[in-house]
Amino acid sequence: MSQLQRIAIAPSQLQQQQIFLTKEQQHYLGRVLRLREGDRFIAMDGKGKSWLAQLTGEQAQLLESISVETELPVSITLMVALPKGNGFDEIVRCCTELGVTCIAPVLSDRTLLHPSPQKLERWRRIAAEAAEQSERSFVPTILEPVTFSTGLSSAISNLSLVNSQQYICVARGEFPHLKDCLQHQGQEKIVIATGPEGGWTTQEVENAIGVGFQPVSLGRRILRAVTAPVVALSLITAACEV
Amino acid sequence: MSQLQRIAIAPSQLQQQQIFLTKEQQHYLGRVLRLREGDRFIAMDGKGKSWLAQLTGEQAQLLESISVETELPVSITLMVALPKGNGFDEIVRCCTELGVTCIAPVLSDRTLLHPSPQKLERWRRIAAEAAEQSERSFVPTILEPVTFSTGLSSAISNLSLVNSQQYICVARGEFPHLKDCLQHQGQEKIVIATGPEGGWTTQEVENAIGVGFQPVSLGRRILRAVTAPVVALSLITAACEV
Repeated sequence: MSQLQRIAIAPSQLQQQQIFLTKEQQHYLGRVLRLREGDRFIAMDGKGKSWLAQLTGEQAQLLESISVETELPVSITLMVALPKGNGFDEIVRCCTELGVTCIAPVLSDRTLLHPSPQKLERWRRIAAEAAEQSERSFVPTILEPVTFSTGLSSAISNLSLVNSQQYICVARGEFPHLKDCLQHQGQEKIVIATGPEGGWTTQEVENAIGVGFQPVSLGRRILRAVTAPVVALSLITAACEV
Repeated sequence: MSQLQRIAIAPSQLQQQQIFLTKEQQHYLGRVLRLREGDRFIAMDGKGKSWLAQLTGEQAQLLESISVETELPVSITLMVALPKGNGFDEIVRCCTELGVTCIAPVLSDRTLLHPSPQKLERWRRIAAEAAEQSERSFVPTILEPVTFSTGLSSAISNLSLVNSQQYICVARGEFPHLKDCLQHQGQEKIVIATGPEGGWTTQEVENAIGVGFQPVSLGRRILRAVTAPVVALSLITAACEV
């Protein structure tokens, strides 16, 4: 079962045990994967449900619901200052594989990039593909880019009712290592913020601390803006894996 | 001091408190970094020594030796099956930032790429640049690609005299998580192996176990061949950081 191809579908494509495949999905299944009439694949709705499905022309028949146990028992939001170039593509891809729940791109004082609206669509497509490849049953949410202060406010406004931890990774300074700060059980939600090339400004770190973020280090070596989120997620997901 | 530019030099460039700069280094310092006569930078020999240096024409004067405490107290060798495309560049870059000591590229049964000799030179240049950027005092060694079985033999032949741990990451199967297997003190050397697209063959995993490698998991989600080494190194370096 684990070797079957996976594709993500929208819940609206499902009607009475049938999947109405889009033109792109028909092309992908038929031309790229070379599946033929009657071949099987796994369809996932990106919200936690998966089915064994069978190709029948321009549709697919749901055969049975399958259980996929690849999700972490905790919700992880990565707030990440947009790096220059295409670095964010790689962050979305790697962090989706690792098990992130939500990625919130933010514009910090030192952010150079102001992304076009098409970028958001591209990032969401990368997240869906990476979720398929890594055999997740959930496709992470990619939020629209906002300023860091707006991002901080919305992160905090959603936290009032749950047992949560918030961290901000800071490259220089004498902060405790993230590994020594992570609680290993009981939390429901973790928010982690990583900075841009050149790091967060002092004011940004202070603002985050002011609303309940704990400053942490990822080690003594200076990590690039695209490496730091992957390292942070590696440590968090390992600590949460059951 | 930490904001000064760093460059890696060969020990042979050092004579009587002078660095004889190569044409490339002169270009980099003068044209790229725009340093002028009398400006300072940090020179590192890639073997653990660093100096504050001052530009004087085509040479640089060593002013004082400086101590850099960014290295881990343990030697980490990453044995990694060469991924397709340029994926290995990214592995070298990220794992150097994280603190790896030696990277041993291997050709596994499922490896598609057979790299040209120029690649090795390119990887070594990337390692030197990443060591500078991440403010390490040591440039990781990149070995020539060999078959996995040759790689296993040489990894093992060097281990007889030290307290070492060897792990092989396996994507599917019920193996314990790497985080639960790492000893947190006392070891002098860690060897970790990560596989190609499609994973190690059963025979390769058995051969590694036969010579003392412990099979481990990096979590329930399937990581790409370029993501797995970064995740493994994140966990190992965090466990070893003092």
